[in-house]
Amino acid sequence: MDIPRTPAGFDTAELAALLDGRWADVRARVREALAGTDLPPGDHLDTESHRALVLDQLHQLVKSGIPEIGFPAAQGGGGDTGGSVVSLEMLAGNLSLMVKAGVQWGLFGGAVQALGTERHHERYLPAIMSLELPGCFAMTETGHGSDVQHLRTTAVYDPDSEEFVVHTPHESARKEYIGNAARDGRMAVVFAQLITAGEGHGVHALMVPIRDESGAPLPGVRIEDCGRKAGLNGVDNGRLTFDRVRVPRENLLNRYGDVAADGTYSSPIGSSGKRFFTMLGTLIRGRVSVAGTAGSAAKLALEIALRYGSARRQFDRPGTDEETVVLDYLGHQRKLLPKLARAYALHFAQEQLVATLHEVQGSGDERAQRELESRAAGLKALTTWHATSTIQAAREACGGAGYLAENQLPQLKADTDVFTTFEGDNTVLLQLVAKGLLTNYKDQFDELGTVGMARFVADQFVGAVIERTAAKSLVQRLVDAVDRDDEESVFDRGWQVRLFDERERHVLDGLARRLRRATGDDADPFEVFNNAQDHVLRAARVHVERVVLEAFVEGIERCRDRDTALVLERLCDLFVLSAIEEDRGWFLEHERITPRRAKAVTEAVNGLCQALRPHAVDLVAAFGIPRQWLTAPIATGAEDERQRVQREHDRSQR
Amino acid sequence: MDIPRTPAGFDTAELAALLDGRWADVRARVREALAGTDLPPGDHLDTESHRALVLDQLHQLVKSGIPEIGFPAAQGGGGDTGGSVVSLEMLAGNLSLMVKAGVQWGLFGGAVQALGTERHHERYLPAIMSLELPGCFAMTETGHGSDVQHLRTTAVYDPDSEEFVVHTPHESARKEYIGNAARDGRMAVVFAQLITAGEGHGVHALMVPIRDESGAPLPGVRIEDCGRKAGLNGVDNGRLTFDRVRVPRENLLNRYGDVAADGTYSSPIGSSGKRFFTMLGTLIRGRVSVAGTAGSAAKLALEIALRYGSARRQFDRPGTDEETVVLDYLGHQRKLLPKLARAYALHFAQEQLVATLHEVQGSGDERAQRELESRAAGLKALTTWHATSTIQAAREACGGAGYLAENQLPQLKADTDVFTTFEGDNTVLLQLVAKGLLTNYKDQFDELGTVGMARFVADQFVGAVIERTAAKSLVQRLVDAVDRDDEESVFDRGWQVRLFDERERHVLDGLARRLRRATGDDADPFEVFNNAQDHVLRAARVHVERVVLEAFVEGIERCRDRDTALVLERLCDLFVLSAIEEDRGWFLEHERITPRRAKAVTEAVNGLCQALRPHAVDLVAAFGIPRQWLTAPIATGAEDERQRVQREHDRSQR
Repeated sequence: MDIPRTPAGFDTAELAALLDGRWADVRARVREALAGTDLPPGDHLDTESHRALVLDQLHQLVKSGIPEIGFPAAQGGGGDTGGSVVSLEMLAGNLSLMVKAGVQWGLFGGAVQALGTERHHERYLPAIMSLELPGCFAMTETGHGSDVQHLRTTAVYDPDSEEFVVHTPHESARKEYIGNAARDGRMAVVFAQLITAGEGHGVHALMVPIRDESGAPLPGVRIEDCGRKAGLNGVDNGRLTFDRVRVPRENLLNRYGDVAADGTYSSPIGSSGKRFFTMLGTLIRGRVSVAGTAGSAAKLALEIALRYGSARRQFDRPGTDEETVVLDYLGHQRKLLPKLARAYALHFAQEQLVATLHEVQGSGDERAQRELESRAAGLKALTTWHATSTIQAAREACGGAGYLAENQLPQLKADTDVFTTFEGDNTVLLQLVAKGLLTNYKDQFDELGTVGMARFVADQFVGAVIERTAAKSLVQRLVDAVDRDDEESVFDRGWQVRLFDERERHVLDGLARRLRRATGDDADPFEVFNNAQDHVLRAARVHVERVVLEAFVEGIERCRDRDTALVLERLCDLFVLSAIEEDRGWFLEHERITPRRAKAVTEAVNGLCQALRPHAVDLVAAFGIPRQWLTAPIATGAEDERQRVQREHDRSQR
Repeated sequence: MDIPRTPAGFDTAELAALLDGRWADVRARVREALAGTDLPPGDHLDTESHRALVLDQLHQLVKSGIPEIGFPAAQGGGGDTGGSVVSLEMLAGNLSLMVKAGVQWGLFGGAVQALGTERHHERYLPAIMSLELPGCFAMTETGHGSDVQHLRTTAVYDPDSEEFVVHTPHESARKEYIGNAARDGRMAVVFAQLITAGEGHGVHALMVPIRDESGAPLPGVRIEDCGRKAGLNGVDNGRLTFDRVRVPRENLLNRYGDVAADGTYSSPIGSSGKRFFTMLGTLIRGRVSVAGTAGSAAKLALEIALRYGSARRQFDRPGTDEETVVLDYLGHQRKLLPKLARAYALHFAQEQLVATLHEVQGSGDERAQRELESRAAGLKALTTWHATSTIQAAREACGGAGYLAENQLPQLKADTDVFTTFEGDNTVLLQLVAKGLLTNYKDQFDELGTVGMARFVADQFVGAVIERTAAKSLVQRLVDAVDRDDEESVFDRGWQVRLFDERERHVLDGLARRLRRATGDDADPFEVFNNAQDHVLRAARVHVERVVLEAFVEGIERCRDRDTALVLERLCDLFVLSAIEEDRGWFLEHERITPRRAKAVTEAVNGLCQALRPHAVDLVAAFGIPRQWLTAPIATGAEDERQRVQREHDRSQR
């Protein structure tokens, strides 16, 4: 099979600039700040020392000015939402630090910023930015992690004292996995069912002090330590239990719901369901940051594995007096290069997501906000799973060396593992995406539970709408240019995009039909929805994959150097075709491709791996991971040096 | 779709006995021995304390008598090869202990037993069994892990002193990742290129003392510590470098090659390649043990996730006043139950492999030995990958709780991670399997490198032979009973088996044709073989999967209780059909199933998940993992208790 032209070289600076994208200045600033500091991950330390180190590093970050980027200008921040996300993801070489920073400034500070009003901003944000007030984001409970709408902590208003009484009724209701809780946090944003005058108004957030100046838990607050975790042991996760803890009325973060002195409740949003999801929606930045960081961690793992794979040799190469470089094996290429291609695709999609976040949040555009939430959920799920599988592949590709702590992969793997289930469990997130697609982002969807959803879909569904996110005219032009599928080359971008489009439309239409068919009067709506769960998850997945492809196509369009663009075109081919190969069961089952074409796709993936192999290291280096994060001896010269010495020795023996 | 009958209950004792199988007595003995000891994994400890603990536990094992099981009766052992493998895999709850035991008694002791002669047995085995002589198996080098035939350490015979001079010529040649080396080992079996009178005779093994009685390295031996690893930190892996270290002539393990006092080399095997692979073949037990242990670790992970999934609830269950048990979600079932089915299939295949090992090793039947090696390689690859993906799925299925060390999954994951690349890198092992298949286990195959292989295949290949391993007549009867594919139910075992058969034959035939076609006179044999590497790996994988299915079918045949057998039949359906679903791209591409049938397979997998869901906990408990290994609070009652308290509280609020 002829693979379209792949240039022998390209402009690495042009590529690096393209990848740095809109927030290139923030990236440059973070790279510079990191180069001037010493922030080693400290994974070799015991838990207590590791936590102490990371807290100290957090203070160093304060000095760099990076944490302020996302805070309001009124409090001395940079007012740059997108920049704050980008800066966090650049800490991927020290994930305990990234997560602790995310807890302090993203979740804790972000909640005060998004859910509080001016009085909270003025009172708390400066101390949060400067780390004088280390805090917690206490939402998740032991019994309710995904279903936070039903968490059990209560905040009952007492008009006599004008205080809220925060209480944990039983063990399932204790706050669980709370970052900054076990050791450093002084204050917590606590999410609780707000009750006033005997009436519940749903989940609201309050500022609850948890430790005094000396670090001792305050009366009524029980703090436990979650202990060792798979990774992220520099973050002090803990459990919080409240025994009728009283806080002043003003501690309610009251942007979306307030309680007057006499106990009267008021809110700009009438429905309690809508209010809850609106509040959650303002906190979306955390999810976007996790996606970005997972993507960065995968890039770092790929850089380690590809650099080692380009140096490491094993088994004689027949007809030469050398051994074979392991990245020359097709099997090795197949382990890593499709994942490199996907890392690029996700990078461009993430850049797009961050830009949308930057523009939409606070704009008051509800429809755009819902779409943003769906995008964030979907991309977070796909990128964190990508990170898990990529770091695993990288570990295996490095053999025993990949198992040694000194080569970084163990810690990257352990630290990122929780990303697939925190800041939203991936499976739950994909269901959210699917429900959003089914209802075309109608306002109502957030308020419908599973039952309502199935009935709603049965009644009102009128066919999925494929919404183009980016490069609308470009992608549409590509699609329109395709005539008959089987005559186009598998490398035809129009054919590829159309295939992704059609898959999405078909899966969604089929799902809607299936749900509609199954919801008779005597059907159990839970059963109906549950029986289709695999279909639901697939709908979300193929939707997000289509969005990601379009972002990649748009990214290439911005490239101004011809050879660089050509290399990216091949990388995009590899992303698309390996995705089609992986899902060819579906395409064949639904007769969207012929068996002959399916085989051609596999052949094309092999050919693309071999064509891109010479560029592998340049392509992964272009991501510009800060150099201080790359410390693995196998990726920084030790293997090359050993090979050189062995070769010299072997020659001297002949 | 109608799922064939699944009984409401079954005989759990009958099932447990069936799973305990031929070595039920050894399993019972180990369970009893473990119940009487205290062998906690100690993962919370720092490296030094962890190593000390595990060494101490090793001494406790000695007292239990378990390590002796596999050693020769002449030295006071039990002479039970199969039993020694089974007993090791039962240590899966403390994998540092299992691996350190495997190093001491399996690899180090096993090498002395298999490669040494009576003088070595008498002199060393008693002290090895009693742990008076802790030792290392020093094969892998930094530069040569998979390609051990070309390792670079030399052992040059000096007839004047009647000694061997063991030497590490450069850094790539140092012994790497050697268990027991960093701290405890006194002696090492060192694999080195044997040279006498200026002539090389290939890799041989020698006993080389590395530490004195006080624990200090002996002169000329440099010992480094590999440091922290992803897991298994209770095992002291290290690096050994030899600077012209002299050992007496008698230290050569001389079963397959000896050097007379005057330096004359002799061997019962003429060809040095054949000699090398024969020596390696005697060490196959380690690989079988890794497969067994990986399987056990996956079972333990499944038990934790299934017990938690049966207790944990999330999101209101419409129409009831309860929340939904998470294992009632189809998506959750799909994460875990196909893996449970595969765990059963692999269990029966492992039992068969151990029996073959027990009978073949030492029998002198070369063909059977080659087949054993191929089986061990293939099953080790599939089972270790199964463990990696199963433990990952279990971790995600347990959400944040699965990330806490107290719930065991982090350590299971970290400890087993290296299994896919140690005791043979899985990718390399599958290539070995494929080569064996292509040459129909002809004696020559081991001596052919890649070049020779491709030419050989081109010249001599005459069509793949599918060898039935087990239940020959039964399976053949099933296959023969099938008439026309598309009229059979997807639950028809004959249809299923034939589909696996035909896939294997087709992939192998296709591969052979492809290699033959590509090997013209001017073709580069490396390129030919490398371009087909994905095809090669697939051939091995589908072969092993067929072998595993037949073992499952045979296992069910041994079940004497009707309802129990019926449940196993459904589990076997789930194994086969989820495997077909996963690979339906291939089946459709090669028109082995129709699109309609492919969809029916997916529907059947969903139905089987739901039908087996009520039995999930009983099925996983039947593996009889020693109870002391199950310590995760979420799997031993904490979650049930929390649910009970929350329910009571919720009711009191109504």
